[in-house]
Amino acid sequence: MRGMNMSPSESGAEIGFTWPIRVYYEDTDAGGIVFYANYLKFFERARTEWLRACGVEQDRLAQEAGALFVVRSTAVDYRAPARLDDLVRIVSRTERIGRASVDFSQEAWRDGTLLATGTIRVGCVDRVALRPAAIPAPVLAALRRGPTVTAPRVSTDNA
Amino acid sequence: MRGMNMSPSESGAEIGFTWPIRVYYEDTDAGGIVFYANYLKFFERARTEWLRACGVEQDRLAQEAGALFVVRSTAVDYRAPARLDDLVRIVSRTERIGRASVDFSQEAWRDGTLLATGTIRVGCVDRVALRPAAIPAPVLAALRRGPTVTAPRVSTDNA
Amino acid sequence: MRGMNMSPSESGAEIGFTWPIRVYYEDTDAGGIVFYANYLKFFERARTEWLRACGVEQDRLAQEAGALFVVRSTAVDYRAPARLDDLVRIVSRTERIGRASVDFSQEAWRDGTLLATGTIRVGCVDRVALRPAAIPAPVLAALRRGPTVTAPRVSTDNA
Amino acid sequence: MRGMNMSPSESGAEIGFTWPIRVYYEDTDAGGIVFYANYLKFFERARTEWLRACGVEQDRLAQEAGALFVVRSTAVDYRAPARLDDLVRIVSRTERIGRASVDFSQEAWRDGTLLATGTIRVGCVDRVALRPAAIPAPVLAALRRGPTVTAPRVSTDNA
Repeated sequence: MRGMNMSPSESGAEIGFTWPIRVYYEDTDAGGIVFYANYLKFFERARTEWLRACGVEQDRLAQEAGALFVVRSTAVDYRAPARLDDLVRIVSRTERIGRASVDFSQEAWRDGTLLATGTIRVGCVDRVALRPAAIPAPVLAALRRGPTVTAPRVSTDNA
Repeated sequence: MRGMNMSPSESGAEIGFTWPIRVYYEDTDAGGIVFYANYLKFFERARTEWLRACGVEQDRLAQEAGALFVVRSTAVDYRAPARLDDLVRIVSRTERIGRASVDFSQEAWRDGTLLATGTIRVGCVDRVALRPAAIPAPVLAALRRGPTVTAPRVSTDNA
Repeated sequence: MRGMNMSPSESGAEIGFTWPIRVYYEDTDAGGIVFYANYLKFFERARTEWLRACGVEQDRLAQEAGALFVVRSTAVDYRAPARLDDLVRIVSRTERIGRASVDFSQEAWRDGTLLATGTIRVGCVDRVALRPAAIPAPVLAALRRGPTVTAPRVSTDNA
Repeated sequence: MRGMNMSPSESGAEIGFTWPIRVYYEDTDAGGIVFYANYLKFFERARTEWLRACGVEQDRLAQEAGALFVVRSTAVDYRAPARLDDLVRIVSRTERIGRASVDFSQEAWRDGTLLATGTIRVGCVDRVALRPAAIPAPVLAALRRGPTVTAPRVSTDNA
């Protein structure tokens, strides 16, 4: 499966889930480097694919369970710049999976260079009022199980 | 009022409606210039303010009339680059106001330099099914009247 | 290779080059659909990968040949909306390869639904003055040859 | 001057510098609210205008002093959502002005509702190598003086 980088003896939770991102012109700014706010986009793409690898698709979650994941807080440190055409790899781990929110630790790497690190808190809300809500039980179980290579609903696009 | 540039003897329809846009890092790319796709954002901001100057706010339009304006087609020619910190002025005119769609002609200028020209077709759709719908009659009348300096619902922010 | 969809008897030029794009929250707007300006980003990602499949990387082109490709004009028709989590496929063809510019015809599809079509003219400029310049001869030859599955510099990320 | 909100007896440093931002479609996502990453754009626009009100323009800073401000770290808490057509006001304060970096505290408000708070560290680098550099002395003095209503180089656009 695209993006998974696990040796057989290691679980996704221990190693992290890797998702590749190519840098295009849209991602850069006049400083010649990736615009810092765009790391939040990169991190979100990786969390979305982590969710998908857990068997959770956010559009279905909204339609079937009336639940949205929203970002509560973000903290990002920028270590080194990425540039046009770079291939960046986002490594994502869950630090805490609570009843109504999840804390992610995420890193952006280009080969052996750490570009940025982020801590992102994502909360579950009901779709209409946008008020905090418990993560639906089957979703919570899926998140705690983590990405599974054989998950039946895992996307295989780009494979 | 911010952005209007009409001499007393000229109507908005003849002269066009001018809206200023400052170029920030977010707008630029690694070529050192404004990323071309962002002119569509600049043009949309200007159309939104043109609508507001006509007394039409899109959030109310959606909530009260169940109508959305969506973009049907865009055509943009790029003439000269804009750069960080430039002050760009968007001039907007309606070329055709139909029952269900409006054609805008828009230009981006920096002082006397024409940066880009665009032709944008905007259509009215119902909010739920996203199917073409007639523009609500009072809105259509407001668009045909055009921006009015004394419009009571015109935003005065940034003034 | 990711994104190529060619039967053995057909060339890339005849069929088009396909690149998959997943829709994330960053791509959508409050209408619940992909923000129309973002199709220009999708089209650019696909053109960039088409170039890469031709053996051309834009960062090297800038550094080694002092040449940039810039967008001269865009024309996009929007047919049907794309939504969160959709998998969109961009099909790209060159309509004309001139000495200093290339015309692309591009389409966005979700399964059998045509979402948007675009005509994009890309011109070559020198990196410093941003003035029109001839496409360097080896690059021009590579573009005319088109994407090659066995191109040695073709990216294999995400494969 | 646009965006300044200071009573005569209070300095910019004590009160904060206010910059208005209108929410357009480009800023929203399919959740119907402002996409969280875009608060970093809003905060940057406000910091840029704060700098301009201090008499510092970043394009000149790069060209004349070879210095760029780059973002070192960001931390944002999201309190309440903003929606299409909202008028958001960004209040910016400097918490620390060091020799090579500045810490900003920024808030996004819609009327009396606090939408988001951010802490942003901005560092000075030399333009070519992107390595940390001391803030040029006249710029440092201007930052310590803070925004001045009568600053000769303050932009008066949109006024």
